[in-house]
Parts: sequence; C-alpha cells; structure tokens
Amino acid sequence: MPLDHTAQGVFPIAPTPFLPDGAIDWPSAERLFAFYASIGADGLTVLGIMGEAPKLEPQESLALLKLAVKYMAGKPIIVGVSAPGFAAMRSLAREAMEAGAAGVMIAPPNTLRTDDQIVGYYAQAIEAIGTDIPVVVQDYPLITSVVMTPGVIRRIVTDNPSVIMLKAEDWPGLEKISTIRTWQAEGTLRPLSIMVANGGLFLDFELERGADGSNTGYAFPEMLIDVVRLAKAGQRDAAHDLFDAHLPLLRYEQQPGVGLAVRKYVMMRRGILGSDAQRKPGAGLSATAKAEVEYLLKRLARFDKRAVM
Amino acid sequence: MPLDHTAQGVFPIAPTPFLPDGAIDWPSAERLFAFYASIGADGLTVLGIMGEAPKLEPQESLALLKLAVKYMAGKPIIVGVSAPGFAAMRSLAREAMEAGAAGVMIAPPNTLRTDDQIVGYYAQAIEAIGTDIPVVVQDYPLITSVVMTPGVIRRIVTDNPSVIMLKAEDWPGLEKISTIRTWQAEGTLRPLSIMVANGGLFLDFELERGADGSNTGYAFPEMLIDVVRLAKAGQRDAAHDLFDAHLPLLRYEQQPGVGLAVRKYVMMRRGILGSDAQRKPGAGLSATAKAEVEYLLKRLARFDKRAVM
Amino acid sequence: MPLDHTAQGVFPIAPTPFLPDGAIDWPSAERLFAFYASIGADGLTVLGIMGEAPKLEPQESLALLKLAVKYMAGKPIIVGVSAPGFAAMRSLAREAMEAGAAGVMIAPPNTLRTDDQIVGYYAQAIEAIGTDIPVVVQDYPLITSVVMTPGVIRRIVTDNPSVIMLKAEDWPGLEKISTIRTWQAEGTLRPLSIMVANGGLFLDFELERGADGSNTGYAFPEMLIDVVRLAKAGQRDAAHDLFDAHLPLLRYEQQPGVGLAVRKYVMMRRGILGSDAQRKPGAGLSATAKAEVEYLLKRLARFDKRAVM
Amino acid sequence: MPLDHTAQGVFPIAPTPFLPDGAIDWPSAERLFAFYASIGADGLTVLGIMGEAPKLEPQESLALLKLAVKYMAGKPIIVGVSAPGFAAMRSLAREAMEAGAAGVMIAPPNTLRTDDQIVGYYAQAIEAIGTDIPVVVQDYPLITSVVMTPGVIRRIVTDNPSVIMLKAEDWPGLEKISTIRTWQAEGTLRPLSIMVANGGLFLDFELERGADGSNTGYAFPEMLIDVVRLAKAGQRDAAHDLFDAHLPLLRYEQQPGVGLAVRKYVMMRRGILGSDAQRKPGAGLSATAKAEVEYLLKRLARFDKRAVM
Repeated sequence: MPLDHTAQGVFPIAPTPFLPDGAIDWPSAERLFAFYASIGADGLTVLGIMGEAPKLEPQESLALLKLAVKYMAGKPIIVGVSAPGFAAMRSLAREAMEAGAAGVMIAPPNTLRTDDQIVGYYAQAIEAIGTDIPVVVQDYPLITSVVMTPGVIRRIVTDNPSVIMLKAEDWPGLEKISTIRTWQAEGTLRPLSIMVANGGLFLDFELERGADGSNTGYAFPEMLIDVVRLAKAGQRDAAHDLFDAHLPLLRYEQQPGVGLAVRKYVMMRRGILGSDAQRKPGAGLSATAKAEVEYLLKRLARFDKRAVM
Repeated sequence: MPLDHTAQGVFPIAPTPFLPDGAIDWPSAERLFAFYASIGADGLTVLGIMGEAPKLEPQESLALLKLAVKYMAGKPIIVGVSAPGFAAMRSLAREAMEAGAAGVMIAPPNTLRTDDQIVGYYAQAIEAIGTDIPVVVQDYPLITSVVMTPGVIRRIVTDNPSVIMLKAEDWPGLEKISTIRTWQAEGTLRPLSIMVANGGLFLDFELERGADGSNTGYAFPEMLIDVVRLAKAGQRDAAHDLFDAHLPLLRYEQQPGVGLAVRKYVMMRRGILGSDAQRKPGAGLSATAKAEVEYLLKRLARFDKRAVM
Repeated sequence: MPLDHTAQGVFPIAPTPFLPDGAIDWPSAERLFAFYASIGADGLTVLGIMGEAPKLEPQESLALLKLAVKYMAGKPIIVGVSAPGFAAMRSLAREAMEAGAAGVMIAPPNTLRTDDQIVGYYAQAIEAIGTDIPVVVQDYPLITSVVMTPGVIRRIVTDNPSVIMLKAEDWPGLEKISTIRTWQAEGTLRPLSIMVANGGLFLDFELERGADGSNTGYAFPEMLIDVVRLAKAGQRDAAHDLFDAHLPLLRYEQQPGVGLAVRKYVMMRRGILGSDAQRKPGAGLSATAKAEVEYLLKRLARFDKRAVM
Repeated sequence: MPLDHTAQGVFPIAPTPFLPDGAIDWPSAERLFAFYASIGADGLTVLGIMGEAPKLEPQESLALLKLAVKYMAGKPIIVGVSAPGFAAMRSLAREAMEAGAAGVMIAPPNTLRTDDQIVGYYAQAIEAIGTDIPVVVQDYPLITSVVMTPGVIRRIVTDNPSVIMLKAEDWPGLEKISTIRTWQAEGTLRPLSIMVANGGLFLDFELERGADGSNTGYAFPEMLIDVVRLAKAGQRDAAHDLFDAHLPLLRYEQQPGVGLAVRKYVMMRRGILGSDAQRKPGAGLSATAKAEVEYLLKRLARFDKRAVM
C-alpha cells in the first residue's frame, strides 16, 4: 500500500526479537508481526533506533523487513534509513523499497545547528535517495539535539514533495502540532500526515491538537489503537480514561535508555516475544526494575484485562 | 534550622509571583509562603530556575528569601546560587546565608565534560563560597547536559564534607539512587540526603528506591507530601493510587519550558497566586493549553478534592 | 567618544592583572592601560572572558573600567555584559555606561539553537538593557556553540538599531565577512562595523575581506595595529610579512584554555604586567610551555625588535 | 607490514579523488598513491572523514583501499571504520583487514559523555571487530565533542591490548602528550605510538613533546616528512624554519569545513589530482578563496621550491 499524506492510525515501532545468544529469534519475529496484524495496526515501522537497527547485519535487516511485509499484508511498512553518509542512506533506502517498504524515515544528524543546515540536509538526503521514495521526517530533539521550528518543517515540506509525514516527538510538542495545523487550515502549507511518538506520553492531547495517529512502540499497542479510535469517535473522556490507566506504565517505559528493556520484558510476559534479550551492547532490567514493572502490570490489570498475566 | 544529611520530606521549589506588569507581587508571595508553611512543607527552595531567579535584581532576591525565612519559621530554606563566575556565586551564597538560608544549591555549568572537570568544578565552587555552607548538588542532565555517574557523585561527596544533599533529577534515575544507597549500606559512602525532582515524574518509585523525599515544584505540593508520608508508612498501594491520580496533570506540568506556566496557572486557579504572570522573557499558555489544564483539573477533582475549583 | 558603526582600527581585549595572591594588581593595570594608549589603540574591550570578568567582584569591575576610561582618554571602551539573566545584564550595562563605557558586548548563551531563538534573544537582551546603549554582537561559535548564519546576523542588525558592531570570530569566517559586505554593497543591510578576533589567526585575510579592524588580545597588540595600518595603506606584502613573522607565537597563544596564560606570561616578560598570575581557578603554564614560548619569542625577535627581551 | 606501537614517521590522510561528475577519478587515485610512496610516506590512512568515506559505496571503498595497498608496497594502511552501529563497524573492519589494511581507526560517537561511557564504548567496539585487529584511537574533541582525559586514554590502552596508536588531535594537546609520555617513562602505561594531527597546526612542538610522527593530511606531505626527520635529527631550528614557512598556508588549510577544498585545490595545482571536485554534498572554494590560496602559494614558493607552480 502506498504511503502518502493521508496516513493515519497507529504504526507501531517494532522491536527486533533476539535469542539470549544474540541471534535473531525468527519464530518470535513471526509471532510479533502476526500480533501487529491481528490487532489492526495501520502500518509498522521497522529498523528504527528501538529496533536495534545499528546492531543488525544488512542481510538480517532485509530479511526482517521482508517478514514484516509478508505478515502485514499490504499495510505500509516504514523503514528507518538514518545513516552518517548519503551513500549508505541511498543503498538502505533503495533496497528497502525493493523489498516492499512503503517509505523511509530520516532523522537529522546531531551536528546540524542552523535552520539552513537542517533544510539543506533534507534536500541533500532526498536528492541522494531519489525523489520517488516517500519520506518521514523525524523531529526528536531530545535524542537528536536538533531543534526544528515549525517554520523549518514548513520549508522542508514545501521544498520536498516526497515528504509526506512528520514523526512528531518534540517535547513539548503540542503547540507545534497546532501551528502546523493552523497553517494548513490557512492554506499556507500542503497536507501532511502527523504521527506522534516520544513514547506516547502526550498522545491524549496530541490527537486533540490534530495528530493523525501514533507512530510509537508501547508494549500494549492495542491501547494506542483504542485511544486513537475513541478520540476520532469524539469519545474524549473514554479516550482519556484508557490512556490514564496506562500512563504509569507508559511513563516507565518511556525512560530514555531503559525503555526498550521494559518494552521487551512486557512483550515477553505477554507471550509475544520468547525473550527480552537485546543484542550487545544493551542493558537489561535489574531485579528491582522487573519487580516494579510487575507491580505496574498488576495495577494496570485492574483496568485493562489485556494486562492480566 | 540547620540543613544536613538527615533532611527529608518535601521541600517545594517556590515560584516567584509577579504582577502582570512584571513587578514582584508581594501579597501573593506572602500567601504562597504561608501556604507552604500551612501544608507542612519540611523546607523550601527559592531562587532556582523555576523561581525565575536570573530575572530578579539582587535586592529582590534577598527580600524574597527573607520573606520565605519569616513564613517558614525555622524550616530550612535552600537557595540556588549557580552562577557563571565564582565571584558572583560567593556573593550570592554569603548574602543568602546571612539572610537566613540553610544551604545553597549548585548546578554544574553545561560546558563540563569529563569526570575530573565535574569533580574539580565542585571543589572550586566550594572553596569559593566557603566550606561552612551546606551544599546541595543538583544532578539534572536534561537541563545541564552534564552527566554525573554515581562514581562522580561519590567523589564529590567524599571530597567535600559540606555536601549534604543530592537533588536527584537524572532521567532515568532509579538505578542511580539504588547504587548510591547500596554504597552507603556497604559503608563506602557517607550518609547523604537524596531529594528527587525532575517534576516528580518518578516520585512513586524513587521513594521506594531510597529517596528521602521530594524537592520539586508541582502545583499541588500537598500530593507530594501525602505520597511521601504514605510511602514511608508502608502504604504502597495508597501512595501509588494518589500519585497515579495526579500523574496526567503532573506530566503536563513537567513539560520543559512550558511547565512553569502550567504551575503558575494552576496555583492562580487555586487562589494562591494572584496572577500567572512571568517576568519577561517568559511564555504564557495558549487558550488551548489552558483548556487542557482545566480539563485535567476537572478529571483530577474526581479523585482529589483539592482540585475542585 | 561615542561608539557607532564607523568604529575601526584595533580594540585590544585587556587582560586583568592580578598579584600572585589573587588581588588585583592596580599598578600593573595602570601600566597596562597606559601601554594601550601609548601604542595608539583605537579603543579597548574590558571585562570579557579573557579579562577573567566572572571572577571579579562588581566593585572591582567598575574600578577597572573607570581606570581604563581615564587612561584611554576619550577612546571608546567596550564592556562585556553577557550574563545568564537579563536583570544582571541590565545592571551591568547601565552601570558600565554611567562609568564611562561607550558600548557593551553580548554573546549568546550556549542553549540557543534555532535561528528564531537567537534573534529573539538579542531582541530581549536589548529591550532589557535599553535601546540607547550601543551593542556589539559576539559571534564566536567555537566557545558559545551558537551558530549564526549571515542571515541571522542580518535579522539582528535590522531589528535592532542599537547594534553597531559585529565581533566576528566564527571559524572559518572569511566567507561570512564577504557575504555581509556584499549585502551592504547591495544596500540590503545597513552599515555595521566588523571587528575580527578569534585570536587574530586570520586577521591578514579578514582585513582584505572587508573587516574594519581587530578586537582581539594578542600579547603584541602593536603588531595588530601595524598590520591593520599596512593593509589599509594597500601594502599587502608588508602586512603579510609582519603577520607571518608573528604567526607561530600568535597560533600558540590562540590555544583554547591555555591562551590567556601565554598572553599574560609574554606581557609579564615585556614588563607590562608585574605577574602572569590568574585569579583562581586558572591554569598556569608548565615549565615546558614556558620554554616553548621563550623559544618562539627568540625566533620572533629576529624579525620584530619588540620581541627582544 | 603489521602495525604496532612502534609506528612512527608520517602517515598522510589520503583524500579521495573525484571527477567533476562525482565518479571516482581512478587515474588520479593511482597518481596520488604513487606520490605518497615516492616521497617516502611511512604509511597511509584512507577512508577517514577527509577521505569523504561516508559518501562512498562499499565496493568503492574496498577498491580504493586495495589500490592504496598495492602502491604503498608493504607500508601499513590504516582504515577509518567509525560507524553508528557495531555491526557495520565489524563488517568494515573485517573486510578492510582482508583487503590488506594493517589496522583500523575508531573515533568515539559524539553522544558519549562520562569517562565510563568512553571506556565502555571502546571495549564494546573492540569486542565487536575482534581483538586481533590493531586499533587507532582517535582523540579529536573539536569534531567529536568527546573529551578524553589522559586517564581515560590510559584506561582504554590498559584494557585493550589491540590498541596500538593514539591519533592525538586534542586542542590544546601538548600537555596531554607530555602526560602520557611521563606515565610511560614511569612504567605506569605500556608503549603506544602517538601520531599527531589536527591539521598539523602544532606539529613542531608536538614532536618535541614526544609524538612519534604525524597522521594528518596537509597538501605538502613532504614538509611533514622533512619536519619529522629534522626534529628527530635534533635540528630544531631547521625544523621550525621549514614548519614556519608553511604555517600561513597550513593554517588556511586547517579551517574546519573548508580545509578539504583547500587541500584538493592545492593538490590539483601540484598536478597530483586531476580535479579538486568533491562528491556531493561538498563545498568548493570561492574565487576569492582560490586567489588567497594562490597568494599563499606564491609566498611559500620563496622558501620552498616545491610550492613553485
């Protein structure tokens, strides 16, 4: 399915399942992608930071992508192709598209400073990969140290027709979404899908500000799907009730550096992954942290049956 | 009251009340400090970043401190004295102590990189202000860009007897608290008060990891006090229930850059502040943001009568 | 003498003389300012980073400034007023102007990222200090981490009539000077004095690109004055010959962090300062470094009699 | 020839020659490597930042390396393998060694902050590539933002027997070299080759501090070779005379971001490269900059016949 500015819903960020010895756990990968398809995910992002992409061999990345394409049966798959050089970015992007991806995501390198540098970088990256590939711009200053004003995003979108989605994870980010939506209402900016992330910490209000959906990786993606559905149906209180019930765990999972370990642990406890292993180098959870997650799951289970283990 | 390593409980971070024209709102300041005293705050921090200290004239800072000392009636007041030069830091610190402060808080400048640079900076700062003033080390990498390992904190504490408190707001920070407490249990680190902050986002588990209390500035400091009390009384579920009820608003208030506007708005709505004004430069809340806060307050009021407006 | 966009020539950055015990060495300060006046310096900058300003008490700063004003007899004195808060910046600026300063220099804080943040910062700073004070914008990314494009400089200059000088120390910076001069030739930017710095490492070509002079602090400011004079007189080869003879030492003095120690050591050897002491915290030169400087001086003395000790 | 801690002399950083259309200019590459062999270079570094490595396709990188190996006839070739992920770093390193490289160079990613993070990163990288590959640690804070104290370098060297060389380009860096050499003289640090870089700006004194040679990429590498030879022969004045004659041009070539364009331009003027083209994205020299380089060459030619064009 082609990816364009009408994209909406929930595109989970898929982790990469590993065996304790560091090899890819292919049965878990099949189970994982089948799970995403079964809950009605509208798409998927693979090979992002949370997918431990930099630890994968090229052939592993490609095989994982192809498996996702197969299981998601026509739903669009986005592939992270951020790379220090445009040669590698081009190879990754072209190979991904040939393997069935619907688009690529590019984060700015943390050496960029001025507005012109950021705008110039996207122009060069898109020239390198080719203007025929749909591009997701990742705006995540907490991790990239690159701050994009709404004006810079407008310049990138205006200059590059192949940019069709903003992965919005600035923090704070609510006013940025409102500004972009205002410009679009005024007709000074063309349509653009806005999918929010940053661990989902503000999904509730981001949807009300005009986000089209979520592109993040919480261990209960069904909640993200339900919240998006409820918000779009105008059931504001119900959306917040469900979101708030998950917020204590979601906040715990959003911790930088630790989050992936929490996510994999919970997905293992849910029976989706066979192990919570990360490929080296990667930190696991301490015994205390695991007990804290278990406590959060038990508390969550009072409100959401899916957390009953 | 002297400030030492036995400090515990809740030391709110006090905002500085302003009139819409930018002058200090002294009646609100009196009401604010009276409020903190009335709810049983164990101490107070004034003139921190959230107190808009860099916008104050020296005589304003001093008058504000003296007012806090008067109203807090013997409870320890901590004063932020971070400054680009040791001459200014020394003046600030000595004047604050003469005016009744119990200790000072020092954050590392964001140019420090290596372990030795950080350790050396605290040695120089403490030599500059004098070794007789109790010092709080502020560990807040999200804002300062300075990353202190537990080992660096141990070196600072060991080298400088006047360091009596860690304001712990690393993110993630749970394992750091556990590491420090383990070292103290083993006897390889002397006693140290650990007060947690970072907007309170992990207060629930930080207390369970061994924090002595909270040194942050949420608009409902009574909740912080109650959670600390419940946690210390071993009422784990009750502590989490109360914390979780506040988490949606607390998270909203913890947004970098926007948080102070939220805090002042809520404290104005509570009748504590006469206005939510910040002295220039400072951003206010958009109409949409205010409506979001109102919605969060209404939801919170279902669980906590103090949020009924 | 008022400071405006016609400023040109050499404005040395004055170090602050200290006694070995850390007190200000007032006789050396008198000798130093008399020296600058005697060599025909067109102005002076005091209380900058290289003047160890953050280590000075307010009354020391003011006394130093007044002494410089007295000795420079009508030549404009620029005072560094960069500060973390606008209240302190305002006090510093107003007091400096009352004490006889001709203008103030403001560097951007290293937390600024986007073009709009930089432009906004200067607008706020100038509103805080008052629009009647001539302002020098310091563009020094190596130290401040803030990158200003020529476009951002144009916005600052256009928005703020009181900005009359750019202290240009970007690295590389030659094309930036050419761009600004081209805009002025085209009439799209109003006149602006450009004084170059960054230790003088590119003074030779910067003058040819259109710089009005130098605002840096080499231990032989007479060389800077001669090079500016020769360049303006069209004696290109002579200007480069003199500059190149000093380049080995100038490069040695331009080392970040070490440069001030080299400068003070050489000025002590020249008999201008009574000591090379810095107020704490400050690093001195190792014995090896001193021997290297002596060797460089001996080599320089072959070409420039002023280096004969 | 194996690469170990006895490495010394000059290992130029080779640029990658391109045709104006962006294709690799293979005849120029042959001429370039033949040139390095003819002047007596002791080794070579290919595929570094200055070799535009991130713009090359994997097969291009490999072919370039093999050509260098062939022409350098047994002299050690070092290959830059810095990469955002350990999977890519491992592939690059293993392939390079199979193609005839003698060792690899690894720079720390600019996200590292604490001493432990830096030490841990090198441990993980070396575990990933295999402990049988000689490793050069690149210490270049100006570019990487990572500050390694001498103590951190000692930990890395002590922990990892395969680390055999430090590419020292801290700035300032003279005292760091002295500290390391002192430790080795005391026997608290094992032998280690120190090759200096940072454009060669301090080569003269770095050799006197104990550096084994130069690993940088000036357009007249013969000068580097001569200066190293003269310094080792105890001809101090002659070494400085030659170095100082080149310093005005060397300084011009050392400008961040512009330096490669200068280097390629001069090597084209020397007849070594057929073009000064960089593969996109890359900035060329303005007409004014070219004229400045020509002027510097003409001045240099008065002292060094090799600069006669």
